[in-house]
Formats: sequence, C-alpha cells, structure tokens
Amino acid sequence: MSTSKEVFIAVIGAGGVGKCFLSQLEGLSKRSSSKLSLIFVSRSKTALYSPKYTALPYENISSTLADSKQETLSIPKIIEYLSAAPSKVVLVDNTSSQDVADAYPAFLAKGISIVTPNKKAFSGSYKLWQDIFSAASTSGAKVYHESSVGAGLPVISTLKELVDTGDEVTRIEGVFSGTMSFLFNSFAPTEGSGGKWSAEVTKAKELGYTEPDPRDDLNGLDVARKLTILARLAGLPIESPTSFPVQSLIPNELESVASGDEFLQKLPEFDSQMEETKNAAEKEGKVVRFVGSIDVAKKEVKVGLEKFDRSHPIAALKGSDNIISFYTKRYGANPLIIQGAGAGGEVTAMGVTGDLIKVLERLS
Amino acid sequence: MSTSKEVFIAVIGAGGVGKCFLSQLEGLSKRSSSKLSLIFVSRSKTALYSPKYTALPYENISSTLADSKQETLSIPKIIEYLSAAPSKVVLVDNTSSQDVADAYPAFLAKGISIVTPNKKAFSGSYKLWQDIFSAASTSGAKVYHESSVGAGLPVISTLKELVDTGDEVTRIEGVFSGTMSFLFNSFAPTEGSGGKWSAEVTKAKELGYTEPDPRDDLNGLDVARKLTILARLAGLPIESPTSFPVQSLIPNELESVASGDEFLQKLPEFDSQMEETKNAAEKEGKVVRFVGSIDVAKKEVKVGLEKFDRSHPIAALKGSDNIISFYTKRYGANPLIIQGAGAGGEVTAMGVTGDLIKVLERLS
Repeated sequence: MSTSKEVFIAVIGAGGVGKCFLSQLEGLSKRSSSKLSLIFVSRSKTALYSPKYTALPYENISSTLADSKQETLSIPKIIEYLSAAPSKVVLVDNTSSQDVADAYPAFLAKGISIVTPNKKAFSGSYKLWQDIFSAASTSGAKVYHESSVGAGLPVISTLKELVDTGDEVTRIEGVFSGTMSFLFNSFAPTEGSGGKWSAEVTKAKELGYTEPDPRDDLNGLDVARKLTILARLAGLPIESPTSFPVQSLIPNELESVASGDEFLQKLPEFDSQMEETKNAAEKEGKVVRFVGSIDVAKKEVKVGLEKFDRSHPIAALKGSDNIISFYTKRYGANPLIIQGAGAGGEVTAMGVTGDLIKVLERLS
Repeated sequence: MSTSKEVFIAVIGAGGVGKCFLSQLEGLSKRSSSKLSLIFVSRSKTALYSPKYTALPYENISSTLADSKQETLSIPKIIEYLSAAPSKVVLVDNTSSQDVADAYPAFLAKGISIVTPNKKAFSGSYKLWQDIFSAASTSGAKVYHESSVGAGLPVISTLKELVDTGDEVTRIEGVFSGTMSFLFNSFAPTEGSGGKWSAEVTKAKELGYTEPDPRDDLNGLDVARKLTILARLAGLPIESPTSFPVQSLIPNELESVASGDEFLQKLPEFDSQMEETKNAAEKEGKVVRFVGSIDVAKKEVKVGLEKFDRSHPIAALKGSDNIISFYTKRYGANPLIIQGAGAGGEVTAMGVTGDLIKVLERLS
C-alpha cells in the first residue's frame, strides 16, 4: 500500500449540506488511507482553526462550530492561511456564495484543490470558468464539482468520461430540478388529474421542497445554471445562464410583489394559465414537464415547459427525482440515462465526499 | 500542468472490443497529458512488440497486428517482459480469457496496473478476487473493470462511490444482459403481444445479439457473473457465480443437444412453457423480465424470471438496454437508476478507455 500521507481539509459552510458532509468526512477519515486533518471549518461569522494547523477533532464538529466564538477570516486571509500550510490542502466549499466562487482561481493558483456543490463558480461568467480551469491546470491543483448538477448522481463524471474517451455528445435533456420535478409530477401526473397549480406550489413549499421564496425555483435560473455547466463541459462556450432562452413560471404581474408569502397568496388568480398548458398537452395524450435541453450540434440551450408522451421516461419520473439523458454517437438512438434524487443534504454531500476521494487518489 | 510522464500500454486481445479500444487509444494518445507508448499488443497467436520497448505506431495498428507473423508470448513471458519495462505499465486485457484473468495477481504484484472488461477475474472464485485486490493494495498498482458490468455505463464506479462515501446499499436490481433485454422486450412487450419465444431467440441470433450458441446467453451464467461482481463490491463474500440460484431458460431436454443450430431447431417444441409464463404475468396486468437482484441485508442473490408492472422502469426498457437500480439508505424509496446500452464494441471499449484515464490520473 502507498504510504499514508497527510492531507489538510478546510471546510467553508456548515448548513444543510455542510453538516451532512462533516459527518461523512468523519466516517471517511476512519477508512481513508490518507491521514485527513481538518484544519479549518467556518460558517457565516465564526470559524474553528489554529495558527499552527492543529487538526480539529471530528466528533461533534458541527455543534462545536455552532458554539465557537472565534471570528472567521476574510477570503484573502483564508487563502493566506491555507497557502502556508505544511501539507497539501483541499478546500471544501459547501456554500452557495458567489464571493467564495470568485476566489477559486486564487485558491487553485496556490495549489489548493477544491471540491464543491456550489454552482456559482461554474455557471457564472465564462471568464471565471476559464480562469478556474487554467489556474488548476497551471498549479496541478484539482477541482471537482459533481454535486453542482443532480447532487450525488454521477452526471458530471459521466459527461466528462463521454467527452474524454472521445464520444460525441449530441444532445443532453432532462429534469434538473427536484422542485420542478415534484411540482409537475403532482400537477400533471401520468395517471389521474393532479391538483391546481397554486395548491401544488403551496404544498411543495410546506414540505420544504422549495426555496423560502418559491419564485427562486419558478424563475428557472437554477435549471439554467445547471444547463450552463453541462453545456460548457460538452464544449459550448456559454457566456452565462442568462444568455439562452429560459422560461420563467412566475406570472409577470407577480414578478415584483414584495414577499414569497404574498406571491403564494396571489398565485391562484393565475391558475388558469397553467391549467391551459396542462389541458393542451392532455389533448395530445401528453403531460407537461419543466425540462432543460442542450443541442450540441446546433449550439442551442433552452429551459422551459415541454410536452412528453406518458410512457416517456421524463413523464414517468417519480417524487422529486431528476433524470438526465445523454444522447451520443456511441449510444445511438437509446440514450444513457441517469435518474434519482437530485437534491437533499445527504446525497448532495455524498457527491462532495466522492469528489474528495477522487482528489485524494490523485494528489501525488 | 504536471510534467508529461511516459506510461507504457500493453494490450491483449484485438477482437470486437479490442479493435474499438485500440482506435479509442489512438485518439486518447493525442489528447492525454501523459505520453502513452504502446509497447505490446497481441491477438490469439500473434503479437507486436520489441525487446527494447520501442513504441508501436497507433495508426492501423489492428491491421498491422492482423498481418503480424511475430509469435505471441506465453503469459509468464508477458509478465517478465512488462516487469522489466523502464516505465510504469498498464495492461489492457480485452479478452474474456480465464487464463489471463488467473494471472492478474501476478501482473499486479509486479506493479503492473490492469484495466479490463473481462468478467472472469472478478466473478471467478472468491480467492482469486481476494488475491487480485490484495496484490494491488500491496504493490500500489491499480485495477479497474467498469466494463465488466453494463459495458461503459457507470455502474461499478457508482456502486464503489456509494460504498466508499459510507452509504448503505440495501438492494441492487436490474436487467444485466443486452441479449435478455432484447428477447423479453420483443417477446413480452408492454404494448402489443410479441412473438413466439423460439422465433425471438432465432431473430436475436440472426441480428448478432446472442453468442454463437444462444444457450450461452440463456443459461443465465453471464448475468450471474455480473451479479457476483456487484454483490462482492457491496460487501457480500459470494463464493462463485454458481453459489446462488440462477434460472436457466434452456429446456432440460435441450441442455445436451450437440449444437446451437440443433438447439434452435428444436426450441419451438418448448414454446408453450414460455408462453404460459407470459400469460400468467399478463393475467396480473404484468410483463415478464429476466432480472438479477441482490438483497444485501438478507445476503440473497438471485437470477431469473420476474413479473413487473407495465409502468415499472424495468418493464419499460427498450431495445437491448440494461437498467440497474441501486436502493440505498441515502436514496430512500426511489433508487438511483442507470440505464442504456450494456453491450457493443464501442461502449464496452469506452468503459475500458475511461478506466485507463483513471489509472493515468492516479499513477504518481
């Protein structure tokens, strides 16, 4: 067996995904052939770390952090602290912060590897995307972000492998939002008639399946970000998640109401719009779903409502599952399909932990 | 970028998968940051290699090999030749040979990494499985075999990641044979009535979807081998592919007829058996499929016919696709599903090429 090496782990963010990750990291530290030393962990305002890089105990780390009075460092100070560490460092960014994402090139340039579910870095400006991968390529640091699309589902690794082994990806299509999946599987089920649109949105919010303001799901931007990432991996230099058509499900009149609660209160007035869409699909024997698609040859990316036969895998999806179909030259008429939960703390953290294992195996 | 290192590649087998792999390797050699030098390639009786490890040209390598008069080496001689090479070596075994598989521990002990679609090594005796992974662990050589189950579909990497990140796999279920998938999707389709069993088998053979003797598919052993591999990865110490119940679809009376052709000739006499099975399922509104399943908690593995609702993803499969469902603690009621072509030269070779990339990234 290769000799056990020490690797320093720094974790930013200890919310839903962060807590699950810290717990998975504790498990991994007991099984890994590398010695995994947690030297920095932070949440919004506080942190735990020592100037001497003393490893923090894994046990109850989330609650120890919650009780910490130690002020967190600014991003430049975190980079400084980690760059001076006497072993290789992997940064785990469990936030959805644009500020942290913007600093990835600086971390990577210092040889600090990154694993993260944070979509912002990979779906922001194309320049940031290029800066990230060129910094990594120059320094040899690694960067993995499996959970930025479909949580722990092997979506990004599969697309990368198709491309890296020389297959030609012609089309990617799927349901990329657990919230949208849940909403449409309930609103327009393949059997039975489903509820009213506003009632389904309210139910989804009550079950915790939406953002605090459901408009943050219904505007389609989350799906657009994921499509941006996949399209770039497939070779399209997409400028930003707003540079292609994205259908918003927020009625114009409700774009600017003050709160999510007010939005939900007024949404029933607009139920007829969605009802018409559903009925139009039903007349063709189909159901409506909110999907994203990438036509690689035509360089077309789009996000919005589409109609599917009831027997189509996208129509037959259950619960809040995601489904992603890769059409390629090698796979021919029947795509390579990946399906399952695309959201949730444990499965998102799993993608991050899996990425961390990949980095550990590749750090020489 | 990390400095370009030279890695020696040795390829055994240049049949359907082997030829596709050699072509993919040529493409990879142009894109890889490692210098990939092909130093040995062999088919049944002949080979191409030089005592000085001079790199072979990739261009037209399959036909050059077909024309070669150079006699191939015995397995011990190949090990000797590769062990003395002045760079790290990756052996690509594109055969389905038990003899080559039995030598994996010897290759690995010498630090030679292995990538292969050959099921024999991982589904033979449990002792061979243990010897392979302990030799790899001791020497630091890598061994990857994605294409031993579901061809290029990310089945093994996904199962490994579930296990390595600490998820609890409770059940694995699916259609693991492209031949069986094709046969049952035609014989018992979800819509329409399908053909006679013997006619479907004959058609599948004519289309090249079966082994030369279709009994080699119908005996269930190919599926049993794949289940053995997955069950072992999930932690069950399965002794061999014959140590759990496997239903054969060969009528007893035809077990010992001399040839595949004679088998096909006599098969119509037994159509009523399969017809009864199909009708019994239909009475429950279901269809019959040939599946494998692993119940990890109960330590039960089985292969055979089962009935599924027409809306079940296993029933709705198309063509000769495979489908594999992973039920785990983290994924809950809805499994993580992977679906697509599970056979064919290009997609099988893709899994091998993908594994080679993984090894290259991990060789320090």
